[in-house]
Parts: sequence; C-alpha cells; structure tokens
Amino acid sequence: MSKLPPSPVAFEPEFVAGMKHIFEDQIVFNQVIGLRITDLRPERVSARIDMRPQLVGHPAYNRLHGGVISAGLDAMGGLACLAAIGARHMDETPAQRLHRFAKLGTIDLRIDYLRPGIGQHFDLTAEVLRLGSRVASTRMELHGPDGTLLACGSGAYIVS
Amino acid sequence: MSKLPPSPVAFEPEFVAGMKHIFEDQIVFNQVIGLRITDLRPERVSARIDMRPQLVGHPAYNRLHGGVISAGLDAMGGLACLAAIGARHMDETPAQRLHRFAKLGTIDLRIDYLRPGIGQHFDLTAEVLRLGSRVASTRMELHGPDGTLLACGSGAYIVS
Amino acid sequence: MSKLPPSPVAFEPEFVAGMKHIFEDQIVFNQVIGLRITDLRPERVSARIDMRPQLVGHPAYNRLHGGVISAGLDAMGGLACLAAIGARHMDETPAQRLHRFAKLGTIDLRIDYLRPGIGQHFDLTAEVLRLGSRVASTRMELHGPDGTLLACGSGAYIVS
Amino acid sequence: MSKLPPSPVAFEPEFVAGMKHIFEDQIVFNQVIGLRITDLRPERVSARIDMRPQLVGHPAYNRLHGGVISAGLDAMGGLACLAAIGARHMDETPAQRLHRFAKLGTIDLRIDYLRPGIGQHFDLTAEVLRLGSRVASTRMELHGPDGTLLACGSGAYIVS
Repeated sequence: MSKLPPSPVAFEPEFVAGMKHIFEDQIVFNQVIGLRITDLRPERVSARIDMRPQLVGHPAYNRLHGGVISAGLDAMGGLACLAAIGARHMDETPAQRLHRFAKLGTIDLRIDYLRPGIGQHFDLTAEVLRLGSRVASTRMELHGPDGTLLACGSGAYIVS
Repeated sequence: MSKLPPSPVAFEPEFVAGMKHIFEDQIVFNQVIGLRITDLRPERVSARIDMRPQLVGHPAYNRLHGGVISAGLDAMGGLACLAAIGARHMDETPAQRLHRFAKLGTIDLRIDYLRPGIGQHFDLTAEVLRLGSRVASTRMELHGPDGTLLACGSGAYIVS
Repeated sequence: MSKLPPSPVAFEPEFVAGMKHIFEDQIVFNQVIGLRITDLRPERVSARIDMRPQLVGHPAYNRLHGGVISAGLDAMGGLACLAAIGARHMDETPAQRLHRFAKLGTIDLRIDYLRPGIGQHFDLTAEVLRLGSRVASTRMELHGPDGTLLACGSGAYIVS
Repeated sequence: MSKLPPSPVAFEPEFVAGMKHIFEDQIVFNQVIGLRITDLRPERVSARIDMRPQLVGHPAYNRLHGGVISAGLDAMGGLACLAAIGARHMDETPAQRLHRFAKLGTIDLRIDYLRPGIGQHFDLTAEVLRLGSRVASTRMELHGPDGTLLACGSGAYIVS
C-alpha cells in the first residue's frame, strides 16, 4: 500500500518509547481497545489489537465491533501523521517532536467495513498520503490473522 | 435534522425493550462506551453517553476519544435502520422484527469531528435518509450538554 | 438543515456579483454543469442546475450523472465556506474578501446518492457546520423539483 | 494498490468493446469529461482524461476541477465493479454480462484531494476490494503525468 519510498530517517529509541507511551498508556481509550504499536517508521506505522470479549459487536457472532475498528484506524492515522511529522523535524529533540502531538486532531474519517472482524488478533497499518503544513491525509487498513483485508479507511488530520 | 414526517407507528413496549436489550446489553462494546437509548421512534432515535475516565482520548485535555464518537455514531446509524425496518414491518411480531437485527451490517461510515468532545454527557441522534430493500443511508449527530453540534456522520448499512 | 442562526450580516451587491462571477463564469467546469447561484447568505447558500442532455449518466434512464452531483455539491460546499468567510471579514472590502477565494481548496468530500436524479431541475444548498481558522466543515444537499432529498454530502475545506 | 491476485479470466473483445461503448459513448457526461478506458482487467481497470480548457476548476490556476476528479473516480469505481462482476459470470454471454450494468448504482463516495490536478493528462485506476452479492466496495486513484498520486477515493456500489 505504501506510496512513499522508505525514508532514510531512523527514529531514536527515546522517540519510539515516547510515542508508545502516548498512544498505549496516556490515551486511555486506546488501552480499552488494546492497541499496541508493533512498528514505527516514518512512512508507515503498524499496530495490533488482540480479540477480547469486551470488543465484541454483534451478539449473534463473535466478531469485532465496528467501533473498535473505527477507533483503531483513527488512532493509526494520527500515529502515521505523528511519525511523518517526526521525520520532517529530526532537527528537533525527541521531546519537542512528541510535543507536536498536542496539536494533532482528526478532521474527518471514512471507514469501509469489507469483511467480518473474526480472528484472535488484528493487524492495523497506516501511511500518510500527503503531509502538508496544516493538513495531512492518511490511508489505513485492518487485516485479519491470515492477512485478509477486513476494513480500510481514509482520514484527514490537522497538523502543525 | 429530520427529513421524514413523524411516523404514525408507535412501537410496542416489548419491541422497545428488545431493542434496548440488544443494543445496551448484548453488544458488549456498546456497554464499554456506555451507550444508553433515550428515545426510539420510527423516524429518529436518540441515546446518551456519560463521560467517564476510560473514554478520554487526548491526554492533554479531558476530551472524548474520537473512537467513542465513531463507535457511538455507527451504533446509532444501525439503531435508526432497525427502527425504520421495524416500522415497515409492523405486521410481524416484535420478536420477528428484532430478529432482523442479525442481518444488519455497516457498509461504510464517515465521521466529521467539528468541536472537542468536552462535557459531562453527550447526546446522539440518528435518522434514516433512505431505506431501500437492500441498503439504508443514515445521518447521525453528537451534541454536547448545551446542545452544540460536536460531530456528525453519514453511514450506509446492509439491511434485509 | 441549518445549524447556525440567521446572520445579521447582509452582503453588498458588489460582493454578491463578485461571487457569482467567480462561480458561474470563471470556473469553467461550473458552466459545463450549469450551476447558477440562487441565494447567497452568510449561513446558507443555494443554487440550481437545469437538466440537459449532456448531464445524463445512466444511458438506460434519463437521470443526472453522479459526477454532476458530486461536482455541484463540492462547488456548493466551497461557496458556503466563502460566504461564511466573507461574513467574518466584513471589515475588509468586497474585493479583499473575494480574493480569499484563491486560497480555498477541498480537502475531502463524501457524497451519499439517495435517489435517482430525475427531474427538469435540481436545487442545491450548503451550510458551514464549523468555520475554523484553517479548516471548514460543510454539509450539502441536492433536492429534486418536488423537494425530495436526492443526495447529500459532507466536505472539509482548507480556508484562510 | 491491487489487493487481489491477477485473475486468470481474460475478457473477450466483444465484452471489452461493449464496456467501452457504454462508458465512453452512452454515458454522455463521461464524454463531457473525456474519460477513455485504457485497460480493462477483472482485478483492475484504468482510464485516462486529457486536460482541456472546459475542465478547469480554479480560475487563478490551470488546474483540473475537483468535480471532474470525483466524476471520473466515481465512474472508475463503477467500471471496476462491472469488470469484477463480468469475471464472476463468464458462463454468461457478453451481452448478458453487459446488461448487468443497468442494475449498477453508486451508494456513496469519498474523494481525498491530495495535490493540485495540474498536467496534460491524468491516469485513473480502480479496483474492487470486496464484491458481495448485493454491495461492492472499491478503491480508486488519480495520478498525474509523472505518476504522482493526486487524488484517491473509496466507493460503495449496489450490484446484482
């Protein structure tokens, strides 16, 4: 899916740890859905959600609630923006770059639900299609354990 | 926001109780976000979410996570579809109409995040703009305690 | 549909004429689809498209091409932004306010096609749900000759 | 972008000619925007639009009107559906498969405008992410002459 060439930028462990702390610990609702970052690169970010009983949507089936999918893909789009912004400002300290998160906000979001979210875990990815000075556009995907595309999304974010 | 005239159909208490049971109890993730139905009419459905610490998104502010908003508005769109379908099939028993829920599914969703979700509680509404034999289109809104429009959405649903 | 109270601002004839000139004459593709402004207020803008053979989509039926609908509703969302921006900057001359159009751009757009676009003419409306300093969110509708809602849309726009 | 493996199905010249006839000749508005099919495969369809004065949007710049982009990408999503449906029903005659077009309709559409549409021609592609018995979901892209991604979209379509 990636539209940008791999970036030569490699994030410092301090920046990666800071990003994980914000997304996995400080954003309480990300804890509720169990979102854990698995890879963090300037051009693409990845995360995983393990299936749990409280994430079930449809009572007749054991499938992931659409709201977990939209919440997870929204968070991933924001994470991709922050990674892209971080790579653009490598002249700043990790703390300065992490501070840019405070100004990030979702403008709007589209989610396409393609197939039922059934599985023990789900892998989420996101990439930035365009990073402007004020707005970023992202594309996100959610895959099942066997790699099947279950949902995808597009988002617009305020950045600075 | 309503586009349809008030329907002369009044739902039986049994149907209303069944809808609440499905949405508030059986869909576990709706419990996680605390979605409670406040009004259920053929042409418009309403619900409320009380703010709680685990629904916080942005750590720097005490505001509602975008994922709670998207999950809540998606659920509301589905509820509006089920109410409209219920009103169309009043010749069926409440149990038969409730059973139609098993075939409902979100095709896609758009959410516009207009203003920060700050407040003690949030009111959600949804209406069906078109109910076809296979697909329904809905419009949803989330308001703050003072009635300010904080987010809105559009959804397409598979119905039968 | 309007979410904002009627604005006390009344646009000068010079500003209205300038807006019409930009939208109806200078944007060539708006001429191709035949978009004509019928009302221009700070909180709501209206326009009309007359049906013509070259706007037909589906060959089996005589209905409006979805692309005319999306192009028209996109243009209306932009027009609504420009009206709202104009009302916010009444301290500027009409020429200064019209010049702000050069910085307007669509970020993204959603269109819901509800019913076939059949009729001799179509009425389009748009309103701004939120006007920020960098981004505006709009809602648009397209109605048939009898007032039936045929399509609706949401858009995000870069403003300045 | 393709999510599906290349299909072993090869369309007959009669089917390809029929598809071109419907899309390029019968849908009048596709002629207005100058949409010409360049490749037609079960898993991916491609087309081109040449820049012309009447397709200009922003008067201050010589760029493609957003409505041409949305109209073109909507048409491409529909074309991708028809190609995927055609490949699924190779037991039918080309005429029977082409007849399925009469039942195709766009449910909704999202367009992300990433970069200004500047260039002598634009290449459009679309693929079906999921083809169900009642609804199909597609993803579309518009590229500039140098291959830069200028816009992308997602659509849901009624199929049968």
